[in-house]
Amino acid sequence: MRKLFTMNTHDLIRELREPAKTKIVMLVADGLGGLPMAPGGLTELETARTPNLDALAREGTVGLSVPVLPGITPGSGPGHLGLFGYDPLEYRIGRGILEALGINFAVGSKDVAIRGNFCTLGADGKITDRRAGRPTNEKNRAAVEKLRTIKIPGVELFVEPVKEHRFVLVIRGDGLGDRVNDTDPQAVGVTPLKAEGADAASAKTADVVNRFLAEAVKVLASEAPINGATLRGFATYPKIATFENVYGLKSAALAVYPMYKGLARLVGMDILDAGQTLQSQMDKLAAVWGDYDFFFLHYKYTDSTGEDGNFPAKVEMIEKLDAAVPDITKLKPDVLIVTGDHSTPSKMKSHSWHPVPTLIHADNCRPDEVIGFSERACLHGGLGQFQAQHLMLLAMAHAGRLGKYGA
Amino acid sequence: MRKLFTMNTHDLIRELREPAKTKIVMLVADGLGGLPMAPGGLTELETARTPNLDALAREGTVGLSVPVLPGITPGSGPGHLGLFGYDPLEYRIGRGILEALGINFAVGSKDVAIRGNFCTLGADGKITDRRAGRPTNEKNRAAVEKLRTIKIPGVELFVEPVKEHRFVLVIRGDGLGDRVNDTDPQAVGVTPLKAEGADAASAKTADVVNRFLAEAVKVLASEAPINGATLRGFATYPKIATFENVYGLKSAALAVYPMYKGLARLVGMDILDAGQTLQSQMDKLAAVWGDYDFFFLHYKYTDSTGEDGNFPAKVEMIEKLDAAVPDITKLKPDVLIVTGDHSTPSKMKSHSWHPVPTLIHADNCRPDEVIGFSERACLHGGLGQFQAQHLMLLAMAHAGRLGKYGA
Repeated sequence: MRKLFTMNTHDLIRELREPAKTKIVMLVADGLGGLPMAPGGLTELETARTPNLDALAREGTVGLSVPVLPGITPGSGPGHLGLFGYDPLEYRIGRGILEALGINFAVGSKDVAIRGNFCTLGADGKITDRRAGRPTNEKNRAAVEKLRTIKIPGVELFVEPVKEHRFVLVIRGDGLGDRVNDTDPQAVGVTPLKAEGADAASAKTADVVNRFLAEAVKVLASEAPINGATLRGFATYPKIATFENVYGLKSAALAVYPMYKGLARLVGMDILDAGQTLQSQMDKLAAVWGDYDFFFLHYKYTDSTGEDGNFPAKVEMIEKLDAAVPDITKLKPDVLIVTGDHSTPSKMKSHSWHPVPTLIHADNCRPDEVIGFSERACLHGGLGQFQAQHLMLLAMAHAGRLGKYGA
Repeated sequence: MRKLFTMNTHDLIRELREPAKTKIVMLVADGLGGLPMAPGGLTELETARTPNLDALAREGTVGLSVPVLPGITPGSGPGHLGLFGYDPLEYRIGRGILEALGINFAVGSKDVAIRGNFCTLGADGKITDRRAGRPTNEKNRAAVEKLRTIKIPGVELFVEPVKEHRFVLVIRGDGLGDRVNDTDPQAVGVTPLKAEGADAASAKTADVVNRFLAEAVKVLASEAPINGATLRGFATYPKIATFENVYGLKSAALAVYPMYKGLARLVGMDILDAGQTLQSQMDKLAAVWGDYDFFFLHYKYTDSTGEDGNFPAKVEMIEKLDAAVPDITKLKPDVLIVTGDHSTPSKMKSHSWHPVPTLIHADNCRPDEVIGFSERACLHGGLGQFQAQHLMLLAMAHAGRLGKYGA
C-alpha cells in the first residue's frame, strides 16, 4: 500500500482515464444563477420559459455547483478554472494574463501582462476621466500606435488594443515579477498611483512601468482626450497542465468574448472562430463535431444582463439560450452539461457566491425527481451540491472515460 | 474533499473517542446502488419490496455516500477502506495483497504477495500461451505442488492455487521490498521479463523471484502445457492502523467471501467463521453478540447479480437481505448502518461511481421526511450526500463514543 498524500485529482484522472469515442459538451451560461427581485418572487431562471432545458433536467440529473467555496464569489477566471477541473484556490490567473489571452496575444513564460486604461489627466496631473471619454476603437488603435514607440532598455514591450479605452501591455524580460500594485486609483480627482514592487523581481517590473507611464504622457499629448494611461492586474504566466494532458480530451472552445477564449487557451483548448452570435456558435459546433471529444460553449449574455441589473433582459437571454439547445441535442452528445461559472443575480448587479444550477444529461445518469431546470428544482437533484472542480470527474465518468479505481 | 485541518481524522478520533458499551452493526450490501434499466424506470432497490429496510429508513436517517470522489468508480478495496474510515486515496492496497486476501491467505507484515500465472514457453524460452491453455483447477493444484518443492535460502515461500492458470506466491522474510516490475510481458512471442528491484529491499525480492522462476521451469517440466510462470502485482503488506487502534472498537467481520474477510483482516478485525449463507451469518452474529463492539456484515449477492446484469436477481437478493434485517434488529444494536461499498447497476454490469444509499438507525438520529429506502428517497435524507470515509465518524457519534472537540 502506497500513501499518496501527494496524489492530486489530476494524477488520479491520468491514472484512470480510458480512451473512448464519446463526446462531451459543456454549455456554460455565464452568471446563470440568480435571485428573486423581491421576497416571494422567482429567480430569472425560474421566470424564464425553458422547455428544452427542462426536458434535459427531467431526463438527466441536476444539482448545484459551488464554484470555489460556500460564500466565495468567483471572478470569470476562478469560475471557469473550477468548471475545467482546476482547483481555483491552487491556480490563480492574473487579470492581465486573461486580458492578453483574450485578444489572442501569445503570452509566454517570460512575460508580465497588464491591463491598461487610457485616461484623461488634468493640467495638475489628476485624473478627470478614467476612460478618456470611452474612445472609439479607431482612437484606441491610434493611441496604441503612439505607445508602441516607447522603448525601455533591457525589456521588450508589446502594446495591444482591446476596445474603447482598454489596451494590454506585455513586458517581456528575465526575472520580472508581478507583485505590483495597480496604478489605477479607481477614482477621479487624484493622480495615478506610482507602481511599486513587493519583491526584487516585481520592483524591476515596477521600474519599467513607471518609466513607460512617464513616456506615455509625452507620446499621447496629441491624442486628447486621451493623454495618459493607468495599469492594473499585473500578472505573470501561470504554470498549468493542459486539458488534453489531464483528461486526454481533444477539446475545442466556441466562445464569442475574448476573455473566455483566453481562459480556454490557458488550458490548451483549440480556440475556434465561432463568430459573434449564438447561432454562429451552434453552426460551428455542428461543423467541427467530428473533430473533437470535448466542446466548451460559452454564452455571455446571462451574465452581462445580470450585471446590468436587467431582470427581464436576463430572462430573455435565458430563453434565447434554451431555444438553441436543440442545435446541441440533435448532434447527440454522449454527455451534455449545462452550468454556469457563477451566479449573477440581477438584484445584486454583480457576480455572487450562490451555487449554480447544473445539469448532466447522459444515458447512465441516475434519475432524480426533478422535472425542471431552476435553482429551487436543483436543490432536489441527484448531484446534490458539489464542488465545481469535480464536475469534470462526473463528465468523464458519464462519458465512460474513467476506469475503476483499485481492485 | 479538501483537508480542512492538518490533523488527520484518525488522530482526531483517537483524541475524542470515549469508552462505551454501545454496539454498532455495519451491514454492507456490496454494490447496493443501481440504475433503472430504461428511462422512466425504477432502480433495483426501488423495485424491491423492502418493508424492514423502509422501517429503518423511516425511524432513522438516510443519505447517499460518495465512496471516493464524485465520478470515481471504486474497486472492492477502496470501497471498503472508505466505509471503514480510511481515506481510499491515501491508502492503496497492492494487487498481490488483494489476491492473497481473496484466497484467505493470512498475509503478514514480513510478506511480499505476488500474483502468478502459469504459462507455456517454447523451446526458445518465448511465451507461446500466457495462460497455459487455461488449465483445470486440478492441473493448477498439481503444478502448485511442484512449485512448493522450490526452496530459496533466507526466505519462506508460500504458493497457493487460485483458479485455472492463476496462483499466488508469498515471499516471507526480512527487508523485502515490492518495487519490482512484473515479469509478465503481457504478450506472446517474447521471453518473460527479468525481475528488477527499484531499491535495495526490492532488489532482494527480485533476486528471490528470479531464482524461483528459474527453478520453476525445471520442476514444471513434466506439467505440459504448463512449463513456466510469470509474476505481477508485487505488494508488501500495507502499513495501516488497526480498527481497534483508531476507534477503540473490538470488531468482528462476518463475511462469506474471502476477499471481504481479507479486507477486514487488513484493518485488524477478528474474522469469524460465519458459514456460507446469510442465515449462518445472522446466527453467528447472535452467538457472538456479547463479545464485540462493532460488527461488519458483508452481503455479496447485490453486487454479483448486478455484475451479471441480472436486474430481477438483484431485486430478489435485496429482498432476501431485507428479510434478514429482523435477525439484526432483534439484537437491539445501538447503531445499525446499512450501506454499500459502491453501486453496481445491473444496467452497466459493473461497479459505478453513483453514490450509495445509506441509512443510520439509532436513538439519536435527527429525523428526516424519508419513509423508504431507495436511491431517490435518500436524496431527501438527513445525511445528504457525504464522503464514505466519514461514515465511521457518524457511527461513533450516534453510538455515544465521540466526545466534544474543543472546549
